[in-house]
Amino acid sequence: MLDITVKNLSREHTVILKIDFASEKPIYEQLKDQVVEGIAYGQLEEGEQLPSVRQMAEDIGINMHTVGKAYSILRREGFLIIYKRSGVKVNKISGMRNKAFLKEIPSLVKPVIAEAYCKGINEEEFIDKCKEIFQSINKGKK
Amino acid sequence: MLDITVKNLSREHTVILKIDFASEKPIYEQLKDQVVEGIAYGQLEEGEQLPSVRQMAEDIGINMHTVGKAYSILRREGFLIIYKRSGVKVNKISGMRNKAFLKEIPSLVKPVIAEAYCKGINEEEFIDKCKEIFQSINKGKK
Repeated sequence: MLDITVKNLSREHTVILKIDFASEKPIYEQLKDQVVEGIAYGQLEEGEQLPSVRQMAEDIGINMHTVGKAYSILRREGFLIIYKRSGVKVNKISGMRNKAFLKEIPSLVKPVIAEAYCKGINEEEFIDKCKEIFQSINKGKK
Repeated sequence: MLDITVKNLSREHTVILKIDFASEKPIYEQLKDQVVEGIAYGQLEEGEQLPSVRQMAEDIGINMHTVGKAYSILRREGFLIIYKRSGVKVNKISGMRNKAFLKEIPSLVKPVIAEAYCKGINEEEFIDKCKEIFQSINKGKK
């Protein structure tokens, strides 16, 4: 597990990205998820600048291609804007209801629920964990 | 998207594995998740035989290493037993409460919840989707 501190120039604060090199989860996916979580929790705000692909790759000690893949998905999903000159910035969260994503949710949570079910975790316990996360996001949000 | 029919000799039924080659989700992870879901939904039962690594790789048209990786995780997680001679069999689901997995749940669902939050999906909508999956598992279960 490696904590990466990303200096965010516009607010002069730091954002910690946790990358676990021992995880089965690919690094680009960890990086992507950490940025999305940073945005959800309000640690990364609209217009704030992230390190360039090269800088982020150097900070974490990974291949530029890995950072590029994460940034590319984040741009496509509307989380980042990548400018040719001024770098990588956090996009505005519209908060508009994305019906397409609502339809994707079952395929994203089904594997976790199936495993939970097999491992004796019941519905209530699972739902409680989800509610706790929503609460923590709501608290983290300014 | 490719549907793979796995003939399951002991019950003479078929299990459909959906592999999406265009997905960002790695093939081994899709395969692993499909087996876990098959077990949760009761399509795969204790003692039933899965194709060997070689056979599964041929059926899907992927590298043996990819199947090996999925099977290896499934064995470690207690979903499969791999015998040297008699092949790959579905393990018994103990249904015993796995506290370690309960603790893993937040890290597994947080990325999805964070994205849902940013995309304007509220807690109730998200929880409803989860409940629907639990219901479908309970119905699928014999």
